[in-house]
Amino acid sequence: MATEPESTTDYSDDPAFTLHRGGKLEVRSTVPVRDKDDLSLAYTPGVARVCTAIADNPELAHDYTWTSKVVAVVTDGTAVLGLGDIGPAASMPVMEGKALLFKQFADVDSVPIALNTTDTEEIIETVIRLAPSFGGINLEDISAPRCFEIEDRLREALDIPVFHDDQHGTAIVALAALQGAARLIGKPLSALRAVVAGAGASGVAVTRILLNAGIGDIAVSDSKGMIYQGRDGLNPVKAALARDTNKLGLKGSTEEALNGADVFIGLSGSTVREECIATMADDAIVFALSNPTPEVHPDVARRHARVVATGRSDFPNQINNVLAFPGIFRGALDVRAHTITEGMKLAAAQALADVVGDDLSPDYVIPSPFDERVAPAVIAAVAEQARREGVNRI
Amino acid sequence: MATEPESTTDYSDDPAFTLHRGGKLEVRSTVPVRDKDDLSLAYTPGVARVCTAIADNPELAHDYTWTSKVVAVVTDGTAVLGLGDIGPAASMPVMEGKALLFKQFADVDSVPIALNTTDTEEIIETVIRLAPSFGGINLEDISAPRCFEIEDRLREALDIPVFHDDQHGTAIVALAALQGAARLIGKPLSALRAVVAGAGASGVAVTRILLNAGIGDIAVSDSKGMIYQGRDGLNPVKAALARDTNKLGLKGSTEEALNGADVFIGLSGSTVREECIATMADDAIVFALSNPTPEVHPDVARRHARVVATGRSDFPNQINNVLAFPGIFRGALDVRAHTITEGMKLAAAQALADVVGDDLSPDYVIPSPFDERVAPAVIAAVAEQARREGVNRI
Repeated sequence: MATEPESTTDYSDDPAFTLHRGGKLEVRSTVPVRDKDDLSLAYTPGVARVCTAIADNPELAHDYTWTSKVVAVVTDGTAVLGLGDIGPAASMPVMEGKALLFKQFADVDSVPIALNTTDTEEIIETVIRLAPSFGGINLEDISAPRCFEIEDRLREALDIPVFHDDQHGTAIVALAALQGAARLIGKPLSALRAVVAGAGASGVAVTRILLNAGIGDIAVSDSKGMIYQGRDGLNPVKAALARDTNKLGLKGSTEEALNGADVFIGLSGSTVREECIATMADDAIVFALSNPTPEVHPDVARRHARVVATGRSDFPNQINNVLAFPGIFRGALDVRAHTITEGMKLAAAQALADVVGDDLSPDYVIPSPFDERVAPAVIAAVAEQARREGVNRI
Repeated sequence: MATEPESTTDYSDDPAFTLHRGGKLEVRSTVPVRDKDDLSLAYTPGVARVCTAIADNPELAHDYTWTSKVVAVVTDGTAVLGLGDIGPAASMPVMEGKALLFKQFADVDSVPIALNTTDTEEIIETVIRLAPSFGGINLEDISAPRCFEIEDRLREALDIPVFHDDQHGTAIVALAALQGAARLIGKPLSALRAVVAGAGASGVAVTRILLNAGIGDIAVSDSKGMIYQGRDGLNPVKAALARDTNKLGLKGSTEEALNGADVFIGLSGSTVREECIATMADDAIVFALSNPTPEVHPDVARRHARVVATGRSDFPNQINNVLAFPGIFRGALDVRAHTITEGMKLAAAQALADVVGDDLSPDYVIPSPFDERVAPAVIAAVAEQARREGVNRI
């Protein structure tokens, strides 16, 4: 007879717990297994012919197994949502949620894998060993700066797409929103000076994609203030940022750097005072993306900025990764891309910006996650760009 | 535009290939994701409350994630069906097939994981790192003798069920069939002398379970003939077998050992001549389990044996692992057993034997895989035994 677990906390009043009971995923067969005949094809002896063919020609695994359509969502549980290092077991509801979004928004099958190691080398070697089972690797909620090396090394080692969503998902959607905002205020990206608060996974990736997209100038801050060349104690990732950003050589605080800036992008969990937002240029653009508490309340920011975006669903212009990652993987898997290039990321951002089209307004610089035009547009753009760059297999 | 892969072989005439196109599995959501409200429970912000609760009390992961219901089917591709060491990519159709059987026969969700390492230590450490994501580990098609150490070490390291199906699935079903056959000929297991051809994963496991079940005597052969104490060059697994088996000290060939034996169990891929089967005791029992070619053709064996079983679906008495592994994992997961004990394996065998009941006949010593009574009986017996031994969590 089943006895109840000893935990005494009652979660039954919280609909999130009710929904999560038993988990959120299942694995199903896509072929019939009704009788002996079905089994003789799906399993022995028929399956042996398929195995033998793949052993002779490994490329056939793409056609005759699910590996070319399934993505591993891999985490070590060190940077989960805003909760931080909560460990692999506690990260699983988020990883399952991610798998559910993959399926819902772009029909991508995925499997959550929470590892009980936080060692960079161990994570890399483990993912490499798992790779024959998957068509792509979505790294998730791995803390900086380890996430950079893990992604770089896995991209080099594997011939399937490797994508750290906390970096690139956020970066792609932020770029798309900024493209919309820039169009709205009638300036090219090359005319804008941006300040990014936060040099973690998303801060670094947003900065990199904006540089690739041709932003006029961009400067990044961490908890010690602006990052500039020659600042003491920069880790290699921040030292590289110092080289490539901050043409003005700003050295003070984030708030000081905002003086005259066109764009503020908050990815730091810190706060920015209204009087500092007020010092920004005319037609300022404020993306206060920390969740659940934006760096500056959107209603406050709006008093001084032309366009305000947040990470929240209860305000306009939500910068939500789900606009990007399902379609990016679907597009890459559809053409069996062996990698996801910078060009594919930029193409995804452009596709998102294009969905907005003529409906552009201060409260609509980026589409809603539930806009059904989004995924097809991203999928097509990513697949097309993969073919253009020749990183496709089919 | 999609271009076809370069492979020129045409598989379109083979229904096994048609069925396998695109793989055999998918991952689906078990909860609704229709709109913003659904997402706010299944993903942020609602999911954060579930994560926080698990971080505070890791046991809650069993209740609020899918980990306690999902099994990893792990292989290194070294001993796939009768095909041998075909590698991880080529093993995937079998692993997917296994997942499909898990689902079909006992509603167990499972994920195929084919590793691109064959190193014992690397396999062990990889599975340990993956363990937070799964409620059980089904080891599959890993060659002997590495499979023994891998299973032993993982059983020790992990607090979830670890089960090498090639060993124990075969062993459980063979024991059940032998119980039926022994009942038919009116002898207790303790009165039977058995010869097992093959000291690989299944040969060793069948021998061990028959010893645990109280077989009178049992002797095992490998490619060099009978295994006996003092034989040169025995590996540790075979040396242990030599200590525990072969009371008569038989030293010759398998065929010589059959003289007067009650039971022959073939798990070797070798052949046994009719004239040697003819030397067995009255009411002989022949399990010629090699696939697709049994050690002796069942029609030939029947001339001299009372009961004949094979691994094939086109002859009576099919010894098919699918009778065991789905129900064993389902039963273990249902009570959140932290291990699968010898007692649970014996209980599964007894449950299978009991399904046969009064319908026992020479052509019916083991139920059909499609007998719908099988899985519920195995599940109940395994869960009950887990509780009896106190290895359950609920």
